[in-house]
Amino acid sequence: MFKLRSLVTALALVGSISVASAWEALPTQALEPSDNPSTAEKIELGKMLYHDPRLSSTGTVSCASCHNTTLGGEDNRPNSMGVNGQTGGRSAPTVWNAAFNKVQFWDGRAATLEAQAAGPVTNPIEMGMKSWDDVVVRLKGIAGYQAAFETVYGKDSISKDNATKAIAAYERTLITPNSPYDKYVGGDKSALSAQQVRGMEKVAELGCTSCHSGAAFNGAGTFQKFPMTADSYLEAKYHFTKDKGVAEVSKKAEDEHFFKVPTLRNIAVTAPYFHNGSVATLDEAVKVMAKVQLNKDLSKDETADIVAFLNGLTGEFPKQHMPKLPETAGKTVN
Amino acid sequence: MFKLRSLVTALALVGSISVASAWEALPTQALEPSDNPSTAEKIELGKMLYHDPRLSSTGTVSCASCHNTTLGGEDNRPNSMGVNGQTGGRSAPTVWNAAFNKVQFWDGRAATLEAQAAGPVTNPIEMGMKSWDDVVVRLKGIAGYQAAFETVYGKDSISKDNATKAIAAYERTLITPNSPYDKYVGGDKSALSAQQVRGMEKVAELGCTSCHSGAAFNGAGTFQKFPMTADSYLEAKYHFTKDKGVAEVSKKAEDEHFFKVPTLRNIAVTAPYFHNGSVATLDEAVKVMAKVQLNKDLSKDETADIVAFLNGLTGEFPKQHMPKLPETAGKTVN
Repeated sequence: MFKLRSLVTALALVGSISVASAWEALPTQALEPSDNPSTAEKIELGKMLYHDPRLSSTGTVSCASCHNTTLGGEDNRPNSMGVNGQTGGRSAPTVWNAAFNKVQFWDGRAATLEAQAAGPVTNPIEMGMKSWDDVVVRLKGIAGYQAAFETVYGKDSISKDNATKAIAAYERTLITPNSPYDKYVGGDKSALSAQQVRGMEKVAELGCTSCHSGAAFNGAGTFQKFPMTADSYLEAKYHFTKDKGVAEVSKKAEDEHFFKVPTLRNIAVTAPYFHNGSVATLDEAVKVMAKVQLNKDLSKDETADIVAFLNGLTGEFPKQHMPKLPETAGKTVN
Repeated sequence: MFKLRSLVTALALVGSISVASAWEALPTQALEPSDNPSTAEKIELGKMLYHDPRLSSTGTVSCASCHNTTLGGEDNRPNSMGVNGQTGGRSAPTVWNAAFNKVQFWDGRAATLEAQAAGPVTNPIEMGMKSWDDVVVRLKGIAGYQAAFETVYGKDSISKDNATKAIAAYERTLITPNSPYDKYVGGDKSALSAQQVRGMEKVAELGCTSCHSGAAFNGAGTFQKFPMTADSYLEAKYHFTKDKGVAEVSKKAEDEHFFKVPTLRNIAVTAPYFHNGSVATLDEAVKVMAKVQLNKDLSKDETADIVAFLNGLTGEFPKQHMPKLPETAGKTVN
């Protein structure tokens, strides 16, 4: 195993740095925060809430609508569609392995899965609930949820905190180990093809893994400027700079166009790409990244090798049973 | 067991008929049509297609969005919400036990589950695909579907017919047996409370089971006029007659306001009620039915007894595993 490259500044990344990356297999379990230990009942409650469209104003949008657990953990759309057909400006990140992100959302504005889970529910263009108080009232009106919360947290325990903790506990189970890459790193040298290994070496050589570092290829919570270098042709085509990233939240000039480094895990099945979902194919995404982040024009073969390697990052999606949601008895959803 | 009451005319139903109903438990298996025998692989493919939002133009609406298999088989909304936040005029019927309907849709315009499954996919306000040809093209672009169809139907077999057959085969597994009512009919006299038994007798005595007959309480594919008698107060409140029912399809005056008799199975968990979803509570739905169909004003106790009985028609929802949908590899959904 190679030594993990230390974090370098944005500026240094543009240059050619040839320190090799550490190649790590994906952990099969995520760490739990001390104030939210996982239990089987909590995970089950979280799974129910995660898949329940009644957490949205219209009763049509659940967490799973945009972060689809029967697919690659997102929706394969440039921008997700929330209540009443509304769309926003960003592409839904995958929920698979989100437990290994150190920060959540494209702009990293949530530090934990728990904090992230609270956001979309009351976002007017996502799940559209007026307030978490309204969510709590609705959940309290469903007898099965009263019982499920009581089992996990004790009597009369339906609250925003307990709901988001349960959702986060469920999300910590959404891990996709045993990708061909993981098997290769674990010693099975036949798990990746010769082309994939070339792509893997190219990824390190180019410096992709400077940011996309660690087992989840997500830089362990680092932020990076995107795009690093202006390219008028690509900008005209993909409008990357329209979104100011972290600065949209912080309002600081120095945060402009900084984004959380997203995971490369399952990247082959989570098109389209980038914060605004503007690039449809993985092939193009790889070329764009090389150009605007590393100022490199990749050859057709280099691109194909890297895409082949990235296909080797698709893991095994765990089998799950379908949650049975407690019914809204004898009355309408809202 | 009593003798099954024969079908009577709409007119006769208004009068008081005291022939008792046949009380039948729900079958645990549905008959398969000879041209669509079920196999485990076909059911699994159907489950995938049923839960796949990529069968809609926006990639956001699956069959399960409106006919939710994690809930009571529908969406607890007055009208469902299709692509781009559009809504129609009718309330989604439950998919649970739809296998026991002799006709499908509120107006019975589909004779089979197979024919029904084809409809919403290309309905512009439901799933919004331009044509089934477009659906087939999209499915052919997903390698996992090519393989799954090949396993079930042979090579290059992705087609509208084969897709809808698989969906129907899956739907034939969506049966909810062992309700308290079924246990009671099966000999366990403790399965229904004294109040529920009073409600059951009242349902027969009033004539509800003249139309809601048979094991699924759905009249085995009969149609009925609704509302039978005008009630200006209720009409002003619920606008029942705005929808002409079967006549919307047949364009015949004699079909005006005729609808398929819907199942009463799981009625307590499938609010809101009626073809237009205008009545939010089961209590009110029972009173409305007595008034406009049977010209009876129910007492508070009678209503409560009937509602208690109807709660006894909630069956056991079978445990299911979550389908894992084949991924859209490296490209966007549409």
